[in-house]
Amino acid sequence: MSEEFHFADALIEAARAKSSVVVVGLDTDPRRLPQFLLGQYPTKAEAQLAFNQAIVDAVCLIVPAVKVQIAFYELLGPAGIETYQKTISYAHSKGLLVIGDIKRGDIGSTAEAYAEAHLQGEHAADAVTVNPYLGSDGILPFLQVGRRQGRGVFALVKTSNPSSSELQDLEVTDPRQRNYEVVARKIGELGADSVGKHGYSLMGAVVGATYPAEAINLRGLLPHTFFLVPGYGAQGAKAGDVAGCFDAHRSGAVVNASRSIIYAYEKSGGASLTEIGNAAAQAAKQMTNDIADALGVHRT
Amino acid sequence: MSEEFHFADALIEAARAKSSVVVVGLDTDPRRLPQFLLGQYPTKAEAQLAFNQAIVDAVCLIVPAVKVQIAFYELLGPAGIETYQKTISYAHSKGLLVIGDIKRGDIGSTAEAYAEAHLQGEHAADAVTVNPYLGSDGILPFLQVGRRQGRGVFALVKTSNPSSSELQDLEVTDPRQRNYEVVARKIGELGADSVGKHGYSLMGAVVGATYPAEAINLRGLLPHTFFLVPGYGAQGAKAGDVAGCFDAHRSGAVVNASRSIIYAYEKSGGASLTEIGNAAAQAAKQMTNDIADALGVHRT
Repeated sequence: MSEEFHFADALIEAARAKSSVVVVGLDTDPRRLPQFLLGQYPTKAEAQLAFNQAIVDAVCLIVPAVKVQIAFYELLGPAGIETYQKTISYAHSKGLLVIGDIKRGDIGSTAEAYAEAHLQGEHAADAVTVNPYLGSDGILPFLQVGRRQGRGVFALVKTSNPSSSELQDLEVTDPRQRNYEVVARKIGELGADSVGKHGYSLMGAVVGATYPAEAINLRGLLPHTFFLVPGYGAQGAKAGDVAGCFDAHRSGAVVNASRSIIYAYEKSGGASLTEIGNAAAQAAKQMTNDIADALGVHRT
Repeated sequence: MSEEFHFADALIEAARAKSSVVVVGLDTDPRRLPQFLLGQYPTKAEAQLAFNQAIVDAVCLIVPAVKVQIAFYELLGPAGIETYQKTISYAHSKGLLVIGDIKRGDIGSTAEAYAEAHLQGEHAADAVTVNPYLGSDGILPFLQVGRRQGRGVFALVKTSNPSSSELQDLEVTDPRQRNYEVVARKIGELGADSVGKHGYSLMGAVVGATYPAEAINLRGLLPHTFFLVPGYGAQGAKAGDVAGCFDAHRSGAVVNASRSIIYAYEKSGGASLTEIGNAAAQAAKQMTNDIADALGVHRT
């Protein structure tokens, strides 16, 4: 490659090329694998991989990226971690960008170990999520490792769950602002020197779709920070709720949905990988169109 | 067993039995394994396990527990996770309690998957660390899984690193208190109904030894919350700094040191597993005695 990889640039270009800002979440719960698939493979980890490959095959021309939720692979121990890595490689082979949803947060040599484990080497994702509770010490090691290869880091800012208010929304005295705004300003600073040609940095933010007012506030605070937006679908947010996450050019954010896409087949009673894939593709297209409508994009 | 396992009770009893409140941190960095050991094993993961077994053999009669830092095992992929699991099993076989330092934090079915992965089954630790940034949604699933078998959960409250102040120390307006105090009160509530016979609950707190004043404050706020205290040794805290983490009966806390114990052999140039173990045992005894002196315990 003559040009160096820059995650935010690559994501923006992939979203444009596919006319979609949807990220499919591979939250493939081994406790929810279809019975027919468990019968076809000797281990849950192998059935999980086959499931993921079917989803990737079905959505790879529709969406720019997938997000792989590592918790559902850790649940199967070493074999699950192998499926996690193989899922990343398979998604890459199908031209998808991959976000590793790991939400790690630690310091010093420990954080470096996490960063090297997840952002370096052949099985690495193109970006990972991190937890900001420990402050910059918990984020910088990831950003440093990521930057070597243009990979990205999304810090949790305002999460999509109900109890995110317990800490994130509390008002701080000096200067008066919410905790999530303190975190936002910090990551805005941390990302300032890795802004790509499309105006977004390698330091991103997780901003829940379930809090539209906070998302609008954050979009204003963080003009160069890409948003990864969870909470769509199964968690209740709709297309109109995510509009505020985007910039004036309808860029700067991607919206994740996991269960409403990968388990779409359950509604139609699908009993083959083809049906699972078809239902996922249909759900991903529908979500793509719903968000395009909410953003006022003229569809062809 | 006629009596059910309760992590805090077990830890207090083990600390009494061994007259030590020291936890040895198995932060076994594969990038820092001794050369002679790498030559003896076909893979880094196997060398890492042999290193851990030597440390466990050396300290199992001296300390009540070990803490296994999962980041250094994740770095080696599936084989590293196998070493992580085998290390837990080996420490258990030598009568040690095991804390899995995983610092996970997520919500809903994802948090349940993490909790089941790390607090359930034959390879599970006796307690894990979790990150509180997402609020109770991020802690309760761990506590629920842990409670089924009396296993514990330590939430990060005031971490040992320099930038922990960025978020954790900020003052909140209503009512005026620091963020780490907000988290502390919340986990105090969450633990209220799992208090064991020695007065401590299954919900614990990570409180850095590097912030003695905050530790004293937290000890007062959280009479039923066991403290896991990092930051001793390599991170700079000394025995006098941790005294405030303990209750009037010199209980209620354990102090972790990792690098200053497991890499103690580097100072003496040890080049065998026996020397590595001996240096670790010596360092663990010294730390045990230094803390006992600081707590005013009469040594025999």
